[in-house]
Amino acid sequence: MSLTFNSRVCNLEASASIALMEKARQLKAQGVDVISLATGEPDFDTPECAAEAGIAGIRDGKTHYVNGRGIPALRERLSRKLQEENGLAYTPEEILVTPGAKYAIFATLFTLLSPGDEVIILNPCWVSYGAMTELAGGVPIYVNLSEEDGYAITQEKLEPYITEKTKLLLLNTPNNPTGRALTQQEAEMLRTLALEHDFYILSDEIYEKVLFDGRRHISIGALPDMYDRVITVNGLSKCAAMTGWRVGYLAAARPIVDMIYMFYQHTLTCIGEFAQLAALEALEHPEEFDRMTESYRIRRDLWQQRMSRIPAVRCLRAEGTFYGWMRIDKDGMSSGDIAAYLLERAQVVLVPGNAYGEKEQPYVRVSLATAAEDLVRAADRLEAVLR
Amino acid sequence: MSLTFNSRVCNLEASASIALMEKARQLKAQGVDVISLATGEPDFDTPECAAEAGIAGIRDGKTHYVNGRGIPALRERLSRKLQEENGLAYTPEEILVTPGAKYAIFATLFTLLSPGDEVIILNPCWVSYGAMTELAGGVPIYVNLSEEDGYAITQEKLEPYITEKTKLLLLNTPNNPTGRALTQQEAEMLRTLALEHDFYILSDEIYEKVLFDGRRHISIGALPDMYDRVITVNGLSKCAAMTGWRVGYLAAARPIVDMIYMFYQHTLTCIGEFAQLAALEALEHPEEFDRMTESYRIRRDLWQQRMSRIPAVRCLRAEGTFYGWMRIDKDGMSSGDIAAYLLERAQVVLVPGNAYGEKEQPYVRVSLATAAEDLVRAADRLEAVLR
Repeated sequence: MSLTFNSRVCNLEASASIALMEKARQLKAQGVDVISLATGEPDFDTPECAAEAGIAGIRDGKTHYVNGRGIPALRERLSRKLQEENGLAYTPEEILVTPGAKYAIFATLFTLLSPGDEVIILNPCWVSYGAMTELAGGVPIYVNLSEEDGYAITQEKLEPYITEKTKLLLLNTPNNPTGRALTQQEAEMLRTLALEHDFYILSDEIYEKVLFDGRRHISIGALPDMYDRVITVNGLSKCAAMTGWRVGYLAAARPIVDMIYMFYQHTLTCIGEFAQLAALEALEHPEEFDRMTESYRIRRDLWQQRMSRIPAVRCLRAEGTFYGWMRIDKDGMSSGDIAAYLLERAQVVLVPGNAYGEKEQPYVRVSLATAAEDLVRAADRLEAVLR
Repeated sequence: MSLTFNSRVCNLEASASIALMEKARQLKAQGVDVISLATGEPDFDTPECAAEAGIAGIRDGKTHYVNGRGIPALRERLSRKLQEENGLAYTPEEILVTPGAKYAIFATLFTLLSPGDEVIILNPCWVSYGAMTELAGGVPIYVNLSEEDGYAITQEKLEPYITEKTKLLLLNTPNNPTGRALTQQEAEMLRTLALEHDFYILSDEIYEKVLFDGRRHISIGALPDMYDRVITVNGLSKCAAMTGWRVGYLAAARPIVDMIYMFYQHTLTCIGEFAQLAALEALEHPEEFDRMTESYRIRRDLWQQRMSRIPAVRCLRAEGTFYGWMRIDKDGMSSGDIAAYLLERAQVVLVPGNAYGEKEQPYVRVSLATAAEDLVRAADRLEAVLR
């Protein structure tokens, strides 16, 4: 039997972070006292106000098909949020609600890219950007940033990779896995390049609310002339601990959103109304976001202080996100080897940096969406093994 | 600015049924006393037992990421259901839970098809089959069935369309929109063709539980040698009135499911645990499915009896699904014209048959997932206008 698959799919690699979360789950089920620092989601439960709004929706029978773009009340609220918090002027008709920000990114890439179009991806980056670009028929063009200059995004680094085929640049701020936030200067430089070379920017702002030390989030779509050149993606999963509700969204100029919705309606119909009502309520409670972010900040400081005691480890000070990005120099091991070594010797699960496109240097990503007690236990174990 | 889109997306037509549901919603919001018979979902609310299981899940914090293939408990239960009710022997590892059956179909087509692969689609058919095939890079090959011989699927009709490029045949039983169920003889003929010409069958069985008059549902994957040649798609949306929960699934041989999951994990991560717990509970209450199906049966009989009084109308007796498929001969109008005419004159929303690939004869689809009182009111209006 001729069992052949689409080459775009069979060339993919499995999502490393999903695979590691799964591995940690299995080990725990077997009774191994494993500490997982691999998870990509808040360890907090959904705020009660949002959960109860969802429950009220279920009890009110809000369990039917609704407008595929998202219920008007949620899109109106998101339109206001984008205006007030991000300086983005998108109408409710220019917003599409999706099952998670991941699908918003995939739907955007699939709709905008024609075969052979190039997408600039800044390494280190989230594990699925390259995969989604390839699934959409695009060609990922990786630009390596480096810790040496603080992962700065510069014109000098980007320009050699821009060609006539450059259709889009994927931006993530604050960045998973490095924790770095976009600067105003970088945003202006990217704007200039996008206008000059006529490409789009997909701005993945899913960690927007997890920013520390008084930093202000920058939405590149708010810069002059960028309204119809940027697709802004966000969602409730990370800021409101709502991963299991699957509520993400995108905002872009009407012709772009309309075309993405064409793709969307033939693949997903809609997401449930009660989940959207939960999201709507969550948006009214930014104090819940702040409460969680303050916990992540405390853990970041705790983790960094602990890691500073291990000579083999250099842990970056994250400006945002709930990740720690650290370099571990141990007998010349690669990041994959180090992650395997620490899983075996310390029963601590970390995601190796090569999953994020950092192929050469031995970095790992640590999730600080982990109870502080577990962070302390994990730090003790790493210290014992690495010292 | 060069705003170009993927040709696969910009060649699509909007989903006619979604567009009409939306139009009916807008008219209602404007205060027009419109009766929508366009909706593709149960008018019943989710059974309380399932809703409460979902609510308990939310309160228990089952709102996090879970195994992307679906929680083990649900996949085990589905494996048992498929074995006991359908004669399908798929292990829990051969099942993938998806946000609705629609995404199960899209993910399957995207994974299995290579550019240029041909997909046989039997008209009349659901509005998104062709669109999803094109999005996946395949070529839809439409085979027109006809009312004259009761929409029989025959070797004679199919063979002229089978080529070396035929990769898959899309089957839907019971069928939306005709309400017709697959016969044992047809299943055996399709099996022979699939084995002889080496193609796959995607069996969309989403209306499985909405079967009338003691008919038994046939799952073609249960026929000999078809285990690794059929992808069976189903879900809770239609049988359990759970459209807004977005719980569908597919079952297929392990290499196929594993590859589909590769696509899935880079586009959607997972669906929420609490929604899966609601689905799990619904599966324990088949009496709820039966209760709704009995209502649809009563409405089918009511509707048919009423339509039989209008000479211009010939309404088929559905064997399953909650749709009525009827031919309206009125001044030589096309199905699109008739739907527009009835919306204007009778304020009744019907979906024109051309949306289902019936381009020549004037058919419309009527949703019987509508309160009996509204069906009576709609029948009165149609009778007044069409007599």
